[in-house]
Order: sequence, then structure tokens, then C-alpha cells
Amino acid sequence: MGCLWISLLIAFLVSSTAEASYCAANGVPIVRNISEISQDNYGRLGLSHMTIAGSVMHGFKEVEVWLQTFAPGVRTPIHRHSCEEIFVVLKGSGTLYLASNSHKNYPGSPQEFPIFTNSTFYVPVNDAHQVWNTNEQEDLQFLVIISRPPVKVFIYDDWYMPHTAAKLKFPYYWDERCYETSPIKDEL
Amino acid sequence: MGCLWISLLIAFLVSSTAEASYCAANGVPIVRNISEISQDNYGRLGLSHMTIAGSVMHGFKEVEVWLQTFAPGVRTPIHRHSCEEIFVVLKGSGTLYLASNSHKNYPGSPQEFPIFTNSTFYVPVNDAHQVWNTNEQEDLQFLVIISRPPVKVFIYDDWYMPHTAAKLKFPYYWDERCYETSPIKDEL
Repeated sequence: MGCLWISLLIAFLVSSTAEASYCAANGVPIVRNISEISQDNYGRLGLSHMTIAGSVMHGFKEVEVWLQTFAPGVRTPIHRHSCEEIFVVLKGSGTLYLASNSHKNYPGSPQEFPIFTNSTFYVPVNDAHQVWNTNEQEDLQFLVIISRPPVKVFIYDDWYMPHTAAKLKFPYYWDERCYETSPIKDEL
Repeated sequence: MGCLWISLLIAFLVSSTAEASYCAANGVPIVRNISEISQDNYGRLGLSHMTIAGSVMHGFKEVEVWLQTFAPGVRTPIHRHSCEEIFVVLKGSGTLYLASNSHKNYPGSPQEFPIFTNSTFYVPVNDAHQVWNTNEQEDLQFLVIISRPPVKVFIYDDWYMPHTAAKLKFPYYWDERCYETSPIKDEL
């Protein structure tokens, strides 16, 4: 059973694989080998991101699935988005920082949730959050599932930045390359 | 990295774990240990199903995530549903039978797609399909992601049954226990 994730790790350690269907607005092959799907850090050091099933990249309309690996110390920005988001942690450990919607004008001090291999966690719609590989010894790897793709992310400099000052990043890093070439539809 | 899936297999081999949040219409804890989530065969011999994130079971509204293991020979019914569906194969191999929407009145003879460890595959919206562990030696284990939960499944006796004769199974097996106790909302 470990072969899958060993294969994935190897895929993450070597350079991106050439992939014919990188921007496949008209759909991708029904079955694909995950080890052959392109991955990149999209300019963020220590990140490995792979879109397994994407809206902008592949034409999915209602869900997206990503595989991400964070090197020790790597973290997401503090951010929020108006979609459901579910994580399945495959390897490593870290911390989810989550500001429930208790302050009207800014996220406020977040709660800390330990995350670990073989855990699943989710982020309530629109709650500001940050996922951080706080384990100095090991990579943190997880699958991410989001609804309402493509993701539109509002980014905060800190937990006390007003919601109104958060900056929209759209298209997001991994959608930028394909966004101009892919027609986005709102419904099935 | 193999520890996750070894843990999951152990969880699948022992009896269901008592779980306080089985029908948690008001949401589940933010972080959960996947090994402690209830699994069951729901009366289908050789199936192990775990709802990692569910609409009826946990209150998610736009996506669901399942972890399923099929013993050798186990297969889904021939069925279709009007949602996006993405699979990530963690272990084993098998066959996806997929009838693209080329016949008006019935699914018609399906195409066969080999699926394998470390593959991902998807089922186009409303296409009739069947997933079958055709490997006699090994379990087939995958994560399943669907949109538009809870799943409403139309089941066919064979590939030439008229679409109009397919039988709706709703709530589906793993949603039956919680369906009566969970308010279903149509939107966020």
C-alpha cells in the first residue's frame, strides 16, 4: 500500500513531467497515472502542487482535487474562500490555524488544531485559515478537495487585517497558466 | 508513508468503531483520525465504505468524500448519477466499465478502462458506469469525491435496460441511517 505514496513522493522530487493534457479545457483522459501528472511549486518555495482534477485545467465544474506537499516550515497564506474544503492527510504533521467567524471586521486570533498522518480535516466556508507544516523533520502531504471551482482566494497579511482589506488572488497560482485558454462555465 | 493505508486496512478489517458523530447534522469535529471513523458494508458483501465527509452524515453541502475497499470480485451496480465523480486509487487494480452517452434510450455496451494503484479516474456526469475489482488477488481501495450530495443513484439491471426503467435508490446505502435525522439544505 505504501507504493502509491512512495511513487508520488518520487514524482514530487523529480522535475515536472511533460503532460499533453496540462490545459485540457475539453476534458482529460478518463484514467491517468498520478505519477505522470505535472507538479510545480508555482513560485512558492517548498510547495509541491498537483491538480489531480481541476476546473480551469481540466474542465471539471463542481469539484477540484489537489495533491500538495509542504516541506518543513512551509505554510499557506492566511486566507479564506467561499467553498467547502476537505483535507485528507497522507503523510507528516502540522497545524491548522482557523479563525471561526466570531469577529465581524477581521479574522481574529485563530484556534490551533494539530493535524497528522491519517487525519482528515475541513475548513468551514469563508473562515480564514492557514495550514502550516510545523514539523521540522518531515514533509506534510495531503489531498485537498474544494467545491465551487475555480478557487477565488482572499489573502490577509495578518489575523487582524480587516476583511475589507483582504486581497483577492484570482486566478490562483496553479490556474494562471490555463485560465486564459479555458472557458469557465457556471453550471453543468 | 505506508502507515496511513496500513492503519486504514486494519480499521477496515476490524468491526466498526463506535463514533459519537456518526449522524452529525450540525457538523463534525474540525480534525478527525480516519482510523476511528465508522465503516460498514451496508449489507453488500465484500464492500467496506467509510464516509470521510458526507452531506447527510456530517452536514457538508457541496462535496462528499468516501473511502471504499472492494474485496476481489466485488463490483458496484451498473448505475448513473447527475454529479461529478473523481476517484483516486490507493491500492489494487480493477476495471471501470463506462457507457458514454452515445445511445439515446439505454447505456449500451460499455468501454473498459483498466484502473490501477496510483491512478485517478473520473466518470462524466450522468454516464452509466460500473467499478469492478477484477483482480482476484488483491483488494481494490480508492477515495471517491462527488459533487451535489447526497448522491441519488439510478441503477440498471444490465447495459441494455432503458434509462426510463432504471431504479432510483435514494437515500443511498450509507445515507439511510442518518437521512431521517438530517435536514437537507439545497444551498450554503
